[in-house]
Amino acid sequence: MTSAKYDVLGIGNAIFDVLVQTDEGFLAAHGMTKGGMSLIDEARAAEIYRDMGPAVEMSGGSAANTIVGLASLGARTAYIGKIKDDQIGRLYAHDIRAAGVAFGTAAAADGPATGCSYILVTPDGERTMNTYLGAAQQLTSGDIDAAEVAASSIVYLEGYLWDPKDAKDAFVKAAAIAHQAGRQVALTLSDSFCVDRYRGEFLELMRQATVDLVFANEAELHSLYETSDFDAALRQLRSDVGLGVVTRSEKGCVVASKDGVSAVPAFPVRAIVDTTGAGDLFAAGFLFGLVRGAGYEAAGRLGALAAAEVIQHIGARPQTSLKELAKANGLPV
Amino acid sequence: MTSAKYDVLGIGNAIFDVLVQTDEGFLAAHGMTKGGMSLIDEARAAEIYRDMGPAVEMSGGSAANTIVGLASLGARTAYIGKIKDDQIGRLYAHDIRAAGVAFGTAAAADGPATGCSYILVTPDGERTMNTYLGAAQQLTSGDIDAAEVAASSIVYLEGYLWDPKDAKDAFVKAAAIAHQAGRQVALTLSDSFCVDRYRGEFLELMRQATVDLVFANEAELHSLYETSDFDAALRQLRSDVGLGVVTRSEKGCVVASKDGVSAVPAFPVRAIVDTTGAGDLFAAGFLFGLVRGAGYEAAGRLGALAAAEVIQHIGARPQTSLKELAKANGLPV
Repeated sequence: MTSAKYDVLGIGNAIFDVLVQTDEGFLAAHGMTKGGMSLIDEARAAEIYRDMGPAVEMSGGSAANTIVGLASLGARTAYIGKIKDDQIGRLYAHDIRAAGVAFGTAAAADGPATGCSYILVTPDGERTMNTYLGAAQQLTSGDIDAAEVAASSIVYLEGYLWDPKDAKDAFVKAAAIAHQAGRQVALTLSDSFCVDRYRGEFLELMRQATVDLVFANEAELHSLYETSDFDAALRQLRSDVGLGVVTRSEKGCVVASKDGVSAVPAFPVRAIVDTTGAGDLFAAGFLFGLVRGAGYEAAGRLGALAAAEVIQHIGARPQTSLKELAKANGLPV
Repeated sequence: MTSAKYDVLGIGNAIFDVLVQTDEGFLAAHGMTKGGMSLIDEARAAEIYRDMGPAVEMSGGSAANTIVGLASLGARTAYIGKIKDDQIGRLYAHDIRAAGVAFGTAAAADGPATGCSYILVTPDGERTMNTYLGAAQQLTSGDIDAAEVAASSIVYLEGYLWDPKDAKDAFVKAAAIAHQAGRQVALTLSDSFCVDRYRGEFLELMRQATVDLVFANEAELHSLYETSDFDAALRQLRSDVGLGVVTRSEKGCVVASKDGVSAVPAFPVRAIVDTTGAGDLFAAGFLFGLVRGAGYEAAGRLGALAAAEVIQHIGARPQTSLKELAKANGLPV
């Protein structure tokens, strides 16, 4: 195994976020399931946007948020995701490159516009996402740069990749290349409804060791094993994957490996403004700890710190240097 | 004079803001004048954007920010400004309409893209703007809807309209229609460098009573009269315009009318995050006070409150209901 060029390479749906603060009534009036991610078509997107209040826009996408968080911590990172060569796609490409991430996926010259998500943030800080995949549907295994994947210590993949038609082929190809090169493969389960859609396939990825590390929140874990018994689900997770990390909001996280289970507390926050990106940034901090060999406890604290930063403002990308923030909190960077 | 359909109709350059937090070094390295608004061409825009960090996007434009602030206070508002029918233009149109503002200016079908401003926010909260006018250059007197202008109690115009080729014709036409209908015309001087460019014309607008009310900050006032003597400049302002309102950052504002001069204090702020929109939102609050007949003191306080809200977060549009905020602070709404 040659030395790695990147600490983490992420692959995901490249999505531009359109965020609006709204009330519970808006969700109800539009039949939205609070806290979830719903896939929408163009007609539904037009309907939601027509009724939405004034928004703030910024680049997003689950794995991309994680990769940008890693870059903010000082990691060497790369990203693969599909945008279109349109105005929004150009904003997207700028932002991820400006964050210090290597991003070379060819933009689609035609087809649907760059994907976007209408994210409704309620007064309690919870976010409800309505995602139009757009150009993200065009991601194929042809977009996987084998050399880049093989040169990355960890390949990080989002469960959402199961939604576009051909992205799962890209996922499987990347995982195979990574393992061939002696690298690790991490998966986030993304969303409990996403787990509902692809439960069998996600379990297969874990049981066949296509993935070495799984990130899940409680809802996703419960959905995966179709149980409301946390401890039972955690036991199953331990037997299905080498390393499982379960986030539990203000209760922190649980790291489950073959060696044992340990709980890591959350960081206190002044006020939760917008939970968009909480899980993504947790994964960023945890993966950063892993690639720096910091141990699960410190990795969990790094994840908790990054998540705490992102939920205290609107949007899923850090607004401050996570490296400086980690230093200020005595965490290894 | 028939009863008004709108309290305030604003006319300005429709600009999409691309905001980034940066350091003083970036401004120096790119030869930018801190705190100002520089007009840039496409090549310079590309150069700045290439070097800029990850950004956050939202609709902006000076007069548009004021009009959105007025709408947030509960005023009936309309806006005239030129966008292109492109992705960013559609975001722009959505945001202003979603704020409750009547916006009917035809989008340009071709020509340059919707205008945008690269706004660099330094750690002290000061903003430095680099504006590519784009489609805003296409605003002409043909875009002035005479019936809408005549139906608005106040027409609010930005000095920046002197920059695009034909927008000043639109400005003069709108002012004439407003006066014909017995309405009032307000002008913001926009920026001290803008005053430098059009000093003679701005003074003529005031002295010929094309405008009834002028908003300026200290730098703009000093530039207008080419003096560093505040009191002398204020005396000239009083003699040149019916009502002059000068904002002085943390020192509050001074309202100068034929009847006298009164000072109104600023609202305390916890921390200045981004001054983008401070003057625009001050004007929103002040104009709201005027149209509600609240008196200069209360109008100045409403302006100070709206400005205080907007400088405590990134971006030039209010993030909370200014109506509720004013109520909570015992101000008339």
